[in-house]
Amino acid sequence: MTAFAPGLNEVRQRTFPFPARHFLSVADLDREQVSGLLDLAEGFVALNRQKAKKLDLLKGRTLVNLFFEASTRTQSSFELAGKRLGADVVNMAPRSSSIVKGETLIDTAVTLNAMQPDILVVRHGASGAASLLSQKVTCSVINAGDGQHEHPSQALLDALALRRAFGRIEGLVVAICGDVLHSRVARSNVGLLTQMGARVIMMLRLQLERMQGALVPSAREYNRLFGLDREKLALAAPHVRVMHPGPMNRGVEIDSDVADDLGVSLIQNQVEMGVAARMAVLAAMAARLDNE
Amino acid sequence: MTAFAPGLNEVRQRTFPFPARHFLSVADLDREQVSGLLDLAEGFVALNRQKAKKLDLLKGRTLVNLFFEASTRTQSSFELAGKRLGADVVNMAPRSSSIVKGETLIDTAVTLNAMQPDILVVRHGASGAASLLSQKVTCSVINAGDGQHEHPSQALLDALALRRAFGRIEGLVVAICGDVLHSRVARSNVGLLTQMGARVIMMLRLQLERMQGALVPSAREYNRLFGLDREKLALAAPHVRVMHPGPMNRGVEIDSDVADDLGVSLIQNQVEMGVAARMAVLAAMAARLDNE
Amino acid sequence: MTAFAPGLNEVRQRTFPFPARHFLSVADLDREQVSGLLDLAEGFVALNRQKAKKLDLLKGRTLVNLFFEASTRTQSSFELAGKRLGADVVNMAPRSSSIVKGETLIDTAVTLNAMQPDILVVRHGASGAASLLSQKVTCSVINAGDGQHEHPSQALLDALALRRAFGRIEGLVVAICGDVLHSRVARSNVGLLTQMGARVIMMLRLQLERMQGALVPSAREYNRLFGLDREKLALAAPHVRVMHPGPMNRGVEIDSDVADDLGVSLIQNQVEMGVAARMAVLAAMAARLDNE
Repeated sequence: MTAFAPGLNEVRQRTFPFPARHFLSVADLDREQVSGLLDLAEGFVALNRQKAKKLDLLKGRTLVNLFFEASTRTQSSFELAGKRLGADVVNMAPRSSSIVKGETLIDTAVTLNAMQPDILVVRHGASGAASLLSQKVTCSVINAGDGQHEHPSQALLDALALRRAFGRIEGLVVAICGDVLHSRVARSNVGLLTQMGARVIMMLRLQLERMQGALVPSAREYNRLFGLDREKLALAAPHVRVMHPGPMNRGVEIDSDVADDLGVSLIQNQVEMGVAARMAVLAAMAARLDNE
Repeated sequence: MTAFAPGLNEVRQRTFPFPARHFLSVADLDREQVSGLLDLAEGFVALNRQKAKKLDLLKGRTLVNLFFEASTRTQSSFELAGKRLGADVVNMAPRSSSIVKGETLIDTAVTLNAMQPDILVVRHGASGAASLLSQKVTCSVINAGDGQHEHPSQALLDALALRRAFGRIEGLVVAICGDVLHSRVARSNVGLLTQMGARVIMMLRLQLERMQGALVPSAREYNRLFGLDREKLALAAPHVRVMHPGPMNRGVEIDSDVADDLGVSLIQNQVEMGVAARMAVLAAMAARLDNE
Repeated sequence: MTAFAPGLNEVRQRTFPFPARHFLSVADLDREQVSGLLDLAEGFVALNRQKAKKLDLLKGRTLVNLFFEASTRTQSSFELAGKRLGADVVNMAPRSSSIVKGETLIDTAVTLNAMQPDILVVRHGASGAASLLSQKVTCSVINAGDGQHEHPSQALLDALALRRAFGRIEGLVVAICGDVLHSRVARSNVGLLTQMGARVIMMLRLQLERMQGALVPSAREYNRLFGLDREKLALAAPHVRVMHPGPMNRGVEIDSDVADDLGVSLIQNQVEMGVAARMAVLAAMAARLDNE
């Protein structure tokens, strides 16, 4: 976990083949593999803070970002990760109505695959879409969010941010608040954090949408009942840290007062860890492809 | 036509200057030049199947994709082709209403040209747009589809797919079905395939749109009358192969049963050949620019 | 100002650290610094006219184009400038409604900054947006247009075009016509050109929008009263040159007759100078970052 001078040789030494052909779920990784990826990511955190942020681990490789759902944050995180590792990166945003049908989703994947990308990063509104695609292509597929199912690279970056903040993940008590029933971020985080030895408290908010006809509270009322403010935060442990996958609805689920307090908030830190964690996944993917 | 290890030296040896400053029409190429480009493309097919898919033939060159009509498939095919050859690639999608007027089309081209791209890949809804642009700029222009006129790189990739499937183009009997009157793909394919010695049967579908007021058949009826299914396919020669430029309307003009039968369908193959054929065109264009 | 063979060594020798961390306004540059940037830009003009247009001055650096307002011309100018200097370039176009609130603008900047770009090029509809962002990030910010405030790289490219056309800027009489009250281009140009010793005549057009209820003249009437045509141009000095930042409304504020006369019009030239001037700014920014 210590920072190291991220020379190419050191990075190569730390890089190991990704354990699976695809990265669809946090269940694809065991505890040791997660630790290895976090260690590798530490090197990329240091690299990204240097002026020369470029390595050639993915030189000659093609990374395609296939985002059926728009996401500036996640897409540019993968785009930067790929480019900094030397890959050719192509963004595709097939959000036209012609994509709606399931058969067309597969046609898109098969078409893309015929262009021989090495790694396909997919976000799609349907749970299971990334897994379905992975069965139809010969390249590696990374799930960048599929419906309410999983968002495994988000869980990896959150684990990295936590490990850097506390020095460990084991034994931490993590509360995940909000609409956790429908959240792929929550699902992936629970899986990965418990595997790493954290205890996780899940807090379901009231299913307000069920009461919509009868009672629609204002954003202000939502904030009063469920929003994280100083008062609610005072109930947590003294060393508590706050995370949010973004984008934030300030004044709704979180107060700016809390979000912007760098002594408490890891939110900016999460974004930085996102690029580094994805570089670790891509480097490991490339190492696996090199061995094939 | 045999595959070769696409080392940089071999590719350089096979590369020859593109015969014209622009690639606007299949009429820009004679039979020998088509064969030369297909031979060159074979090298890129092999290259793209390797893990290191990168050459430097277009290093320092700028390729601009100027797509007035959206096309994920063709645009990313050219983008990948350019990037794998080392070019800097910039995508532009000027689809705003301000582009509608012809004078503005030329202003866009002249503006772009002042940024000194080496190669401008243009798709536009108006027949003749690429030719018009080519007269206003100093860079090379590749027509990636202009209205109902031509789509010459599509014809080249189709010829490549055919030559690989049958070992030759000469003597093949090719039937082009659908709304061939309005199809730039049909127009370019007929020109190039007949030049290479194929015989081509054109099949005009009924001009259903003319009867729109009186009789609008359902997609199902269209499929029954004109859609390619197993039954109709049985009337063709035993070694028949099926091609489609994509995107497919499954269950309308083609049945999934036929489209997905890899013993018969060359459709995925066409996409792969698309990247390789465009790399051949770009490499030849760059060789011509190097000589100027 | 003479052209030089833009070998990497010569370019490195001419490159100097940008005088400020950010480039928000023409007021960030004194007269000598403007001259130095124009001299540097001359080298990039020559480079861009060569077949190999690539240097490594920004290798390993990340440039992010963050355009809240669409602008094909300015965005691709910066994209090309960055790529030709070897940077990794990422385009972001967050134009969704979620960006409207000022606090979200800052969240976007802080998020982006956590991905460690070296240079952030920002266009935004609100005056002062670039300056606000620059206070929230650790990277360098280049203002590519903020509301009615400034567009400093446009002023730099216009100065370059003028200096090349007349051999000097000092003593030139420059008339800026149109809605100069609301124009960031006019504001930046007046600041930079007067600093370089030009005299500038500002011509406010009538505030037609104030009379909208009472009198809405047609585009034709606008053209007759305010449009630049041969007749009005004849009133200027014999060596007069015409500039326009684009995109032009032909037949409204300028006649094609004037715009397309290469003996008079510098309009195409401005676009070419745009890429070169931005390369000069980026190279100087990188030199400053290298020294930090």
